[in-house]
Amino acid sequence: MLVVMRNDATEEQCGAVADVIRSMGYSAERVPGAQRIAICVLGNKSRVDSSNIETMDGVKEVIHVTKAYKLVSREAKENSIITVGGCSFGDKTIPVIAGPCAVEDRELFFEIAEVVKELGAVMLRGGAYKPRTSPYAFQGLGIEGLKILAEARDRTGLPVCTEVMDTDTIDVVSEYADVIQIGARNMHNFSLLRKVGRQSRPVLLKRGLSATINEMLMAAEYIISEGNWNVILCERGIRTFEEQTRNTLDLSLIPIIHEVSHLPVIVDPSHAVGRRESVPPMARAAVAAGADGLMVEVHTNPRIALSDGPQSLEPEDFEHLMDEVRMIATAIGRTVQ
Amino acid sequence: MLVVMRNDATEEQCGAVADVIRSMGYSAERVPGAQRIAICVLGNKSRVDSSNIETMDGVKEVIHVTKAYKLVSREAKENSIITVGGCSFGDKTIPVIAGPCAVEDRELFFEIAEVVKELGAVMLRGGAYKPRTSPYAFQGLGIEGLKILAEARDRTGLPVCTEVMDTDTIDVVSEYADVIQIGARNMHNFSLLRKVGRQSRPVLLKRGLSATINEMLMAAEYIISEGNWNVILCERGIRTFEEQTRNTLDLSLIPIIHEVSHLPVIVDPSHAVGRRESVPPMARAAVAAGADGLMVEVHTNPRIALSDGPQSLEPEDFEHLMDEVRMIATAIGRTVQ
Amino acid sequence: MLVVMRNDATEEQCGAVADVIRSMGYSAERVPGAQRIAICVLGNKSRVDSSNIETMDGVKEVIHVTKAYKLVSREAKENSIITVGGCSFGDKTIPVIAGPCAVEDRELFFEIAEVVKELGAVMLRGGAYKPRTSPYAFQGLGIEGLKILAEARDRTGLPVCTEVMDTDTIDVVSEYADVIQIGARNMHNFSLLRKVGRQSRPVLLKRGLSATINEMLMAAEYIISEGNWNVILCERGIRTFEEQTRNTLDLSLIPIIHEVSHLPVIVDPSHAVGRRESVPPMARAAVAAGADGLMVEVHTNPRIALSDGPQSLEPEDFEHLMDEVRMIATAIGRTVQ
Amino acid sequence: MLVVMRNDATEEQCGAVADVIRSMGYSAERVPGAQRIAICVLGNKSRVDSSNIETMDGVKEVIHVTKAYKLVSREAKENSIITVGGCSFGDKTIPVIAGPCAVEDRELFFEIAEVVKELGAVMLRGGAYKPRTSPYAFQGLGIEGLKILAEARDRTGLPVCTEVMDTDTIDVVSEYADVIQIGARNMHNFSLLRKVGRQSRPVLLKRGLSATINEMLMAAEYIISEGNWNVILCERGIRTFEEQTRNTLDLSLIPIIHEVSHLPVIVDPSHAVGRRESVPPMARAAVAAGADGLMVEVHTNPRIALSDGPQSLEPEDFEHLMDEVRMIATAIGRTVQ
Repeated sequence: MLVVMRNDATEEQCGAVADVIRSMGYSAERVPGAQRIAICVLGNKSRVDSSNIETMDGVKEVIHVTKAYKLVSREAKENSIITVGGCSFGDKTIPVIAGPCAVEDRELFFEIAEVVKELGAVMLRGGAYKPRTSPYAFQGLGIEGLKILAEARDRTGLPVCTEVMDTDTIDVVSEYADVIQIGARNMHNFSLLRKVGRQSRPVLLKRGLSATINEMLMAAEYIISEGNWNVILCERGIRTFEEQTRNTLDLSLIPIIHEVSHLPVIVDPSHAVGRRESVPPMARAAVAAGADGLMVEVHTNPRIALSDGPQSLEPEDFEHLMDEVRMIATAIGRTVQ
Repeated sequence: MLVVMRNDATEEQCGAVADVIRSMGYSAERVPGAQRIAICVLGNKSRVDSSNIETMDGVKEVIHVTKAYKLVSREAKENSIITVGGCSFGDKTIPVIAGPCAVEDRELFFEIAEVVKELGAVMLRGGAYKPRTSPYAFQGLGIEGLKILAEARDRTGLPVCTEVMDTDTIDVVSEYADVIQIGARNMHNFSLLRKVGRQSRPVLLKRGLSATINEMLMAAEYIISEGNWNVILCERGIRTFEEQTRNTLDLSLIPIIHEVSHLPVIVDPSHAVGRRESVPPMARAAVAAGADGLMVEVHTNPRIALSDGPQSLEPEDFEHLMDEVRMIATAIGRTVQ
Repeated sequence: MLVVMRNDATEEQCGAVADVIRSMGYSAERVPGAQRIAICVLGNKSRVDSSNIETMDGVKEVIHVTKAYKLVSREAKENSIITVGGCSFGDKTIPVIAGPCAVEDRELFFEIAEVVKELGAVMLRGGAYKPRTSPYAFQGLGIEGLKILAEARDRTGLPVCTEVMDTDTIDVVSEYADVIQIGARNMHNFSLLRKVGRQSRPVLLKRGLSATINEMLMAAEYIISEGNWNVILCERGIRTFEEQTRNTLDLSLIPIIHEVSHLPVIVDPSHAVGRRESVPPMARAAVAAGADGLMVEVHTNPRIALSDGPQSLEPEDFEHLMDEVRMIATAIGRTVQ
Repeated sequence: MLVVMRNDATEEQCGAVADVIRSMGYSAERVPGAQRIAICVLGNKSRVDSSNIETMDGVKEVIHVTKAYKLVSREAKENSIITVGGCSFGDKTIPVIAGPCAVEDRELFFEIAEVVKELGAVMLRGGAYKPRTSPYAFQGLGIEGLKILAEARDRTGLPVCTEVMDTDTIDVVSEYADVIQIGARNMHNFSLLRKVGRQSRPVLLKRGLSATINEMLMAAEYIISEGNWNVILCERGIRTFEEQTRNTLDLSLIPIIHEVSHLPVIVDPSHAVGRRESVPPMARAAVAAGADGLMVEVHTNPRIALSDGPQSLEPEDFEHLMDEVRMIATAIGRTVQ
């Protein structure tokens, strides 16, 4: 249940509503928002009797949210615009995040960072901690990788996004990164979700390998329920029987997310398709479908990449892709940032 | 194996090559093409010894095709452009096929036909024979529906596309329709595929409910192997665990099809998503991903539709969608026909 | 809706009920059964007003069936026992159907038929018409294969089961075969389902590649709605992302089918797993889960089989499997026939 | 690569081999085993040149393992038998683990524990930390639940198995539990896998929601590569399009696991099917397919269960199931412990 307060409601009136909610045995969560003051009722298992609350001073209306997710729902909040380091997710602009799959080498990362910045990327990506199917595969440079990311930010001025794999390293990752990524394999790692919800960096939440849209929204609900409202959703393909693509990019989640949630949703075509040639058409399609951003793997020398080389674009491909998505964005009244 | 002949090869030289192929125990299939004369060797289980053929008069080169599909492969033929009633699939233009799910009523169909024509559709769709999960659901008007389709063609000047469900009705369907559709549930109906391969109408082949890209290409190979080279592939969503969408539209097949096959591929977003609101973003995404056409359900009164009302666009939605896909097409250097 | 008549209801009373149903605009279908006389109301889109019928002479009770399927439902009929050539599906016995994937050679088929009979199979299987993904693969011997099957029946005394691929060959297949199989790729071929529903041979209906349990029951409903109540369902694996097995055998459909339908359900482990070594454990599991029969591929020389050799058991494996499933059957109070 | 030593090889000879391996830049991991001394070479990206090692003193043979997993493979080790608190996984006996989904109440848990012990269970299950899709659902009693589990062990004499959700709580869980469960949602939580690999309790590893068999084996490889060889695999259903079952129980993984790995594999039918009525047939099928154990949810009052009540068996159902699986086990030459 959501209690929407009048714009002129006083802090005292809001507190009084929250007290009544708590006295009924539920939790009360303040929903942030420039244009609306609202209090979300959490912890109820069935419809809450709202008759007492509706007549309280300062209350404008009471909305009964029937879905399992509350705080991520469009009823709870107007469109979220998440701003970080000059990038903005959720408004008319479409930021492009680019970089190699993993941070592998200091000089090489700087080289790639400079190139993607020049070509229009507004945020850098690069894994310092890599979740790998095999314990014997390259696992990332760890804290060394985080330092390279931070140095690249200083050199380019672009914010950086990198993955956190466990609760033990959240503090160090959030010390160095501007956006903390939760990878697909951790979308159901509820302890990790809670803990990134308790720190202040924006979170990029990737869809699980076989997660439904509702489960992804519930994962975002975990983060927001701990107080961190800055969640950016990211589609990266789901597992199907098709063998020609690594995963099946499910762009049809975009209009559904936009209908039911206030959160921005971006698309990572590189991990979904697993082959370089398919990245540009899928990036174009994502923007055309309404994506609020793109995350693309770029490498200046994919042949030597320690992970995911075959899906990394070379700079000239990335330049061409940027031109294409700019034109698609314009066609639908948006701009690539 | 594919024997590419020199441009100045004589009919006699071609015949001699075919004779040698047959003397080796294989079939020889002439591959049509404006710019190239080629002969495909069929029926071999392993690599064919081509040494004798390579040195024959008129032979330019011999290509060993390693995939299971031969005639649909890009090695076999340059880009197919399939033209029917003024529409053209496979070149720079993007034809939009529109109409109701089923032909339900004569006057209503004419009304819808006029509307979609005015808004830019270049081919009409409408089912006369409807494959329905339940034997008690509306099964289509049958031959009566075919006659309405033909009459609508006469009135609007637009060609019509309709589904054939079994070998018994191929003759009557191809008498009335301009393009014969094989529905998703019949993509593995090999007897039907063979028989539409023996008639002359272009065939719109929908991807099976859970067909892989390779299986879809093999289904097209069945049709072409009987002599009908005019096959238009159509993506319409695959079955996954996601419950918010009826099927998961797999746009990533587009770049793969374009890479391995000469056949055009169009997209039907209506059946994939199952809800009206998601059709325009997915139609835009399909064009951006490189689709060679769209097939969209439109109804002037979706509430009374006997099948698939919830996914049908109303005329004003369709008008808006046409504007959007025109702009997307322009952005990638193509035009909506 | 289902009208259950009293055991002493006269033919006249049944006719009167059917007349009233028809006068209300619905169809009336007599449900066969030794212990119960019932009439099923078909064609209604919402709940039928049964007040008039409930008070008619001879009517015992009226059951409102809320599922999409009517005639296959357990409400419509007590347990179906389908008997053919001495085999019986749906009672305490568990018939084992065995033979090669395809009928490839007359003498070879006779050899295999004798072997599987001696080891305990009570029905022969073997494809005369083979649905193959590739048009260039072995497509079966056709009518020649049917004749070999009939001759094998004469020699062994065992009934034979073989697949029909299209409406054109239903007549000839039902002339030679004792049980007509609808393959997985044709489970949604509604024209074929209707037509096998109009002939008198029992039908073995395989689950579609990605068909839900409800869709499989609706396919059976198509057959029964045309008058043929002798439908044997067959699980053969569904398509998933797992690559180590050809399909994923879904044994959990067995208790669900037994709960909602009166039809027997058997299991074909050979096509599901695609590898010989996994067939015996899956056959044992199927019997333990309550399967009403097994269909197993056996070949005396799998290395020369033209199709599916790697999944065919050799005679000694089959002998061992028969011993095992007999013991499992005994453990749950049933017997391998 | 695996270096198998002669039975009479000295500790010194083993050490010399390990030294040579390390001097080549790889890791050397001693493989435990009563009947064989072996050293596994890890960290190689391509085939290792083994010529120097083959001729060393004490070396019996060198086996090149071509799969991505090494230590879990059958080449690396003879059949693993994992013994804990009197239960033994991987030999002829089939232990049954039973209890409620979650530990909800002290007295209730003791009641259930006594009941399942009396009916034949040899290990208790019960979640103290529950991974729940919703942050507002019951999350388990935490450490309080662990204490109840330990108390139940003292009362019944049965070992207990419970889930660990994050690296923060591994120490406390391994203090109280006899077997540590990694849930399906954490199968790809590599940090957690590594850390349970560094403690000494046996680990029950559940298959991920959409994990392939190979991925599950790689997850086990993570645990073993840290030194903990006591891993019990557990199938609990995979995600498919079928809606009548919560997940699709994939019993065909059992023969594959047994062929490629030395690890025992058990089955949890309760979570797979999601409905009480299907649990007994699937439990029987699992044993028939060769499962090395069962994990079943039992509750004395499922209607009041805070989680997964609809899939919990009542004591009399469990009693009946134990009788059935005992008979199935006997039929295949095994015994329910």
